[in-house]
Amino acid sequence: MASFVRTGRKIVAIGRNFAEHAKEFNNAVPTEPFFFLKPTTSYVASGGRVEIPQGVIVHHEVELGVIIGKTGRDISEAEADSYVAGYALAIDMTARNMQDAVKKKGLPWSAAKGFDTFTPISSFIPKESISDPHNINLWLKINDTFKQNGNTTDMIFRIPRLIQHISSIMTLEEGDLILTGTPSGVGPVEPGDTITAGLAIPSSSSSSPLATLK
Amino acid sequence: MASFVRTGRKIVAIGRNFAEHAKEFNNAVPTEPFFFLKPTTSYVASGGRVEIPQGVIVHHEVELGVIIGKTGRDISEAEADSYVAGYALAIDMTARNMQDAVKKKGLPWSAAKGFDTFTPISSFIPKESISDPHNINLWLKINDTFKQNGNTTDMIFRIPRLIQHISSIMTLEEGDLILTGTPSGVGPVEPGDTITAGLAIPSSSSSSPLATLK
Ligand SMILES: [Mg+2]
Ligand SMILES: [Mg+2]
Ligand SMILES: [Mg+2]
Repeated sequence: MASFVRTGRKIVAIGRNFAEHAKEFNNAVPTEPFFFLKPTTSYVASGGRVEIPQGVIVHHEVELGVIIGKTGRDISEAEADSYVAGYALAIDMTARNMQDAVKKKGLPWSAAKGFDTFTPISSFIPKESISDPHNINLWLKINDTFKQNGNTTDMIFRIPRLIQHISSIMTLEEGDLILTGTPSGVGPVEPGDTITAGLAIPSSSSSSPLATLK
Repeated sequence: MASFVRTGRKIVAIGRNFAEHAKEFNNAVPTEPFFFLKPTTSYVASGGRVEIPQGVIVHHEVELGVIIGKTGRDISEAEADSYVAGYALAIDMTARNMQDAVKKKGLPWSAAKGFDTFTPISSFIPKESISDPHNINLWLKINDTFKQNGNTTDMIFRIPRLIQHISSIMTLEEGDLILTGTPSGVGPVEPGDTITAGLAIPSSSSSSPLATLK
């Protein structure tokens, strides 16, 4: 599954899965998970450049990605872990002013979330490297300033529940990516900014993160 | 591109591209195209069965599908035709009550449009078989009753404009499908109903449609 960026067919992104982030925009904390789709053409590898389209306010949302290892539908929470091949660090770039406009009109989020380069992604992290995906530090800096610094323990819906929910609607396939939601601190990026993000195990004796994106 | 169902990575579906359909739900006629994404796991071939999830009101929307033949970004209207490999007849099945609920809340359409089997699709129609894609009859029957009977001449935004718009946001790749919107007459399907849809050239001396779905 190291080739998920090339071979995967969908990106399923969970909205508002951290209470503090939901509150940033005065959104209600959800009572069940919801998701949107991003196209795989939005992937960009670490070191790449993120597009800032004319007139668009682009926000960063650092997230833990879950990579699916085998095909399944109607997966139970109990079985969910066996469908996980590994993880990745991702940023769910969002055209916030476009999203605000379509939300008011009840229109789809797909354009606001779907520009080329709107899903910066790390390389594949094997499942064995992360013993507890619900205790992972996620951080993001713009230039030298920390903007997001959260922990996946604060997810409202945990990974097995996300897999159960998505797969109750659509088949998950090998190479699909689930974006599990962002902690608080999202905000705009400007042309010329450097975005650095990291994913690390808090208890790790090593100070080096498992993944970084730049 | 006959293998687009197996190899394509996205389905980009245009909303409200026929004025009479927009008016069915008291929606404004759009002044620029908008789209949502459907997962490729929603494909089902002719002869297959469409899922009607518990508690869900599922509507049919018969549409002309455009299959992309080569990768492109920022494609101009003038160049658009060279990116078209062919066509397909499709039905954009829609969980209407779910869609109504998320529209009110400003939430994504992805679940309401994305269930497995929500994109019945014909086999590939080579480009040469359709000399004018803006003069194609699209019809749909439930059991023996005609429900939709339109012509692609009534599209608000024509195919080159759709390709230009989508590709101004995301790269279109070989095997991607664009659903070009549905004429009026959409409505619910019930368990046990047989849906038949067809796509035909009006001037054709032959009475047999180019594609049917059942
Ligand atoms: Mg996000
Ligand atoms: Mg959407
Ligand atoms: Mg439609």
